[in-house]
Amino acid sequence: VHTIPVGLLGLGNVGAGVVRLLADNDAAIAARLGARIEIRAAAVRDPQRPRQATLDAARLTTDPAAVCVDPAIRVVLEVMGGVEPARTLLLAAIAAGKHVVTANKHVLAEHGDEIFAAAAAARVNVYYEAAVCGGLPIIRALREGLASDRIQELVGIVNGTSNFILTAMADEGRPFDEVLRAAQAAGYAEADPSFDVDGIDAGHKLTLLTRLSFGTRLKPEQILCEGLRRVTPADLALAARFGYVIKPLAVADDDGRGVLARVHPALVPARDPLALCAGTMNAIKVTSAALGQSLYQGRGAGMMPTAVAVVADLIEVCRDLPTARAARGPGGGEAPAPGSPLPQARPLRDPGDLECRYYLRFAAADRPGVLAQVTRILGEHEISIWQLVQEGSPAPGSPAPVVVVTHPARERRVQAALALIDRLPVVASPTLLLRIQS
Amino acid sequence: VHTIPVGLLGLGNVGAGVVRLLADNDAAIAARLGARIEIRAAAVRDPQRPRQATLDAARLTTDPAAVCVDPAIRVVLEVMGGVEPARTLLLAAIAAGKHVVTANKHVLAEHGDEIFAAAAAARVNVYYEAAVCGGLPIIRALREGLASDRIQELVGIVNGTSNFILTAMADEGRPFDEVLRAAQAAGYAEADPSFDVDGIDAGHKLTLLTRLSFGTRLKPEQILCEGLRRVTPADLALAARFGYVIKPLAVADDDGRGVLARVHPALVPARDPLALCAGTMNAIKVTSAALGQSLYQGRGAGMMPTAVAVVADLIEVCRDLPTARAARGPGGGEAPAPGSPLPQARPLRDPGDLECRYYLRFAAADRPGVLAQVTRILGEHEISIWQLVQEGSPAPGSPAPVVVVTHPARERRVQAALALIDRLPVVASPTLLLRIQS
Repeated sequence: VHTIPVGLLGLGNVGAGVVRLLADNDAAIAARLGARIEIRAAAVRDPQRPRQATLDAARLTTDPAAVCVDPAIRVVLEVMGGVEPARTLLLAAIAAGKHVVTANKHVLAEHGDEIFAAAAAARVNVYYEAAVCGGLPIIRALREGLASDRIQELVGIVNGTSNFILTAMADEGRPFDEVLRAAQAAGYAEADPSFDVDGIDAGHKLTLLTRLSFGTRLKPEQILCEGLRRVTPADLALAARFGYVIKPLAVADDDGRGVLARVHPALVPARDPLALCAGTMNAIKVTSAALGQSLYQGRGAGMMPTAVAVVADLIEVCRDLPTARAARGPGGGEAPAPGSPLPQARPLRDPGDLECRYYLRFAAADRPGVLAQVTRILGEHEISIWQLVQEGSPAPGSPAPVVVVTHPARERRVQAALALIDRLPVVASPTLLLRIQS
Repeated sequence: VHTIPVGLLGLGNVGAGVVRLLADNDAAIAARLGARIEIRAAAVRDPQRPRQATLDAARLTTDPAAVCVDPAIRVVLEVMGGVEPARTLLLAAIAAGKHVVTANKHVLAEHGDEIFAAAAAARVNVYYEAAVCGGLPIIRALREGLASDRIQELVGIVNGTSNFILTAMADEGRPFDEVLRAAQAAGYAEADPSFDVDGIDAGHKLTLLTRLSFGTRLKPEQILCEGLRRVTPADLALAARFGYVIKPLAVADDDGRGVLARVHPALVPARDPLALCAGTMNAIKVTSAALGQSLYQGRGAGMMPTAVAVVADLIEVCRDLPTARAARGPGGGEAPAPGSPLPQARPLRDPGDLECRYYLRFAAADRPGVLAQVTRILGEHEISIWQLVQEGSPAPGSPAPVVVVTHPARERRVQAALALIDRLPVVASPTLLLRIQS
C-alpha cells in the first residue's frame, strides 16, 4: 500500500481532530482508499505549545508557506481559519499544484471567486465540506446528490451557538445575556460572540450555499442579516402560544425572478423538523424541483464533527489522485475545466420584495388611542393583522408590549410602516420585527 | 461543449423520469459538467407502447445487449429492475468497459458481490444512489461524507409504501387490509404488495447499506425480517398511549462484537425524528463514532425523486470520464483498485443476541388465572414487565388483548417465552411481538 503525504496548516482544535481521526481510522481509511494518508508536515505558530494531537515533533514547522510548496506533498489541509494568512497560503498551495481541503468559511465567503478561479486555472480541486455544518455532508448533497436537480429553496440552522442560545432561552426562560454567558462558560460561544449571535458566521456559510445552489456570487454584505440580541424569553413564549418556535435561520430562495439570501431569527411552525432541531445541532431543509423536500441534520461544529468533514474531503481528493489534475468541479458548481461555459448564475432580488408573515412587538405606552395609531399605520400600508395580543403593562405607566402577527405582507411595506410607528411619541423603543418561515 | 453518449436499459417510470430530468436541466447540467449528456440508445421491450418520455423513436431499440457493448456509449444506466436480465446486462456492460449506474436494489442485494468484483476487475464504477431511498443522497453520505468515520448504527424508514400504510392506519384508525387497498388504488402499492409490506424491499436496501457501512456481505436471507400484516389500529393506538409511534424500520448496528441487521415494524418514541417521518417519506438516522448522530430525510420513491439520483450518479460518473477507468471505490467501500486490501468486513452477530424493550400483545382468554400463567412464563425467562394494559374483552368469552411493555430483555429469551405462551390452551392466537427502538 502506498502512502499519500499531505500537509496541514494549523493544529488547533480541528487540526488535532484531523490527526486523531486519521490515527483512529487508519486501517479502515487505507482499506477504503487503497492507500495510507500521512501528515508529512504540520505548520503551527508555536511548536512548544501543548496540543491535543499526538504528532511527531519532527513533523511540526513554523513555516506554512514551505508546506504549501513542498514537492513531496500532494494535498494541503487548511484548518487555521480567518482571512489572512489563510488566503495567501491557499493561493500558494493551489499555484504549486496542490489540491486543497479547507474548513474555512470566512476566507471562502470573502475570497471564493479568487480562490476557485485560481483552482480552475491550476486544475486542482478545492473541497470545503467542513466549512458548512461541520460533518453533515450538505456540500456533497448539493454538489453531487442534487447536481441533477434545480434547487428552489434552502432553509437552515447553520450556527450551532445561536441555536443553543435560543433553545436554552426557550427552555429555561432566561434572557439572552445570561444564556450567552453560560454558553461562553461551556465553550459553546467565543469570548467575542458577534460572529455567531449577529449572524456573520451564518452569512459566510449562506454565501457558500448560495453559490453552490444558484451559481450566484454573493458578497456577505448583500445578505439581509439580523442577529439574536433583541429576542427575549417573552417573545419565545408568545411565539409558542401562536404555535411557533424561534430559530436562527439562514434562508436562500429563488422564486423565479431571482435569489434572496437572509440570516435572521424567525418563527418556525412547532411541528417543522427545523423547530425540533435543538441545542447545538444544525439542520438544512432543501427544496428542489424534482426531489421535493429533503432534510439534513447533524452536529455542525466541534473538533471531531469538523474533522470528519475534513478527512472525508481528503479521502475524496486522494481517490482522484492517481488520475488527478482534472478538477471535478472545484467549487460552487464551477465549470470543471477552463473553457467550459459558466453555470447560469441567478440574479439577486431585492430583500424588500420578500413576502411573508411577520411577528411585530411594539413597545407602546399604556395609554388610550395608542393601539389605534399603530393599527392605522399598518392598515395604511396594506398590512393586515392576523392575531394581536396586548399583555398588561408590567408596571403602571411603563410600556405595554403589543404583539401583532400579520397576514402575508411585503417586507418593503412593513419596514416603511415600522419607520413611522417607531417615530410615534407613544412608542418607547424600536419595534422588534421577526419573520415567520412557513 | 462535447457530448457524452449514454445508454438506457428500460424506459418505464424511472427511465422516463431520467429522460425528462436530462431535458429539463440540460443547460444547468452542461454548465456543471462542462459537457452535454445525450441518451444515444434506450432499450425497451415494446417500442410501440405509449410512454411518458419524449425520446426520438430512432433511439429506441429492443436489443439491450447491443446497448451494453455499443462502442459509442460510455455509461450504461440500468433502470429496468428485477434480477434477470438486469444482472446479465450489467455484467455485459461492465465487461465492455462501461461505467454503470443502476437503480436496481434487488439485483445488487442478490448479486452485488459478483457485480462489484466484475467492476473492480474491469476498473469501472458502479453507482447506485437510486437503489436506496431514491433521491435522498444517503449512499453518497455513507460512501463519501462518512468515509472518514466509523459507523455504529443505521436506523431507517426505507420503504415508503410501508410508511404510508402505517401512517394512514394510525391517522385514520383503519385496518391494514383496507389501507393497503387504498394505497394500491392510489398507486403507492403494487398489485402484489409483499415486496413492500413483508420487508423484502427494505431488506434489499439494508443489504446495500450494511455492505457500505460495515463492509459486511449480507445475504438478504440473513436479515431478521418481519412485515406489517399483523399490526392493528389498536396496536397503533396503544403504542401512542405509551408515547410511541409504530414505524417500519430497517436497522443495522455494530455493537463491537458484530453486525445485526433487521427489518420490522417497531415502536419509536413520539419525539424521535423518525416518528415524525410520515406518509411516503423516507428517513435514515446514522450514528457514527466521531460525528455522532446525523439524519437524512426525503422522498425515497417515485419517478422524479428516483431520476434525481440516477442522473446525479450519471453526472458523477461523467465528471470522472476524462480521467476514467480508475474506479473511485465502486461500491460497498470496496477497494478502488485490484491488489489493494479489502475493507475490514465486520462479522455478523446472532439476532438472538438483540437486547431491547418489547411490546407484546397476547390474545388471552378472558378467564381467571390467565394473566398469572403468562406473567409467570415471562418471569421464568427473566423478562420483567414495565407496563401492562388489559383491555376489556370486546365480547363476552372472546379473547381479551393483554399488552405488555417489557424492560430491556434478550430476544432469545423473549422468543423462548413466547413459544411456551403461544402453546397455552388459553391463548387464542400467536402473540404479536414488536420491538421498541429507542
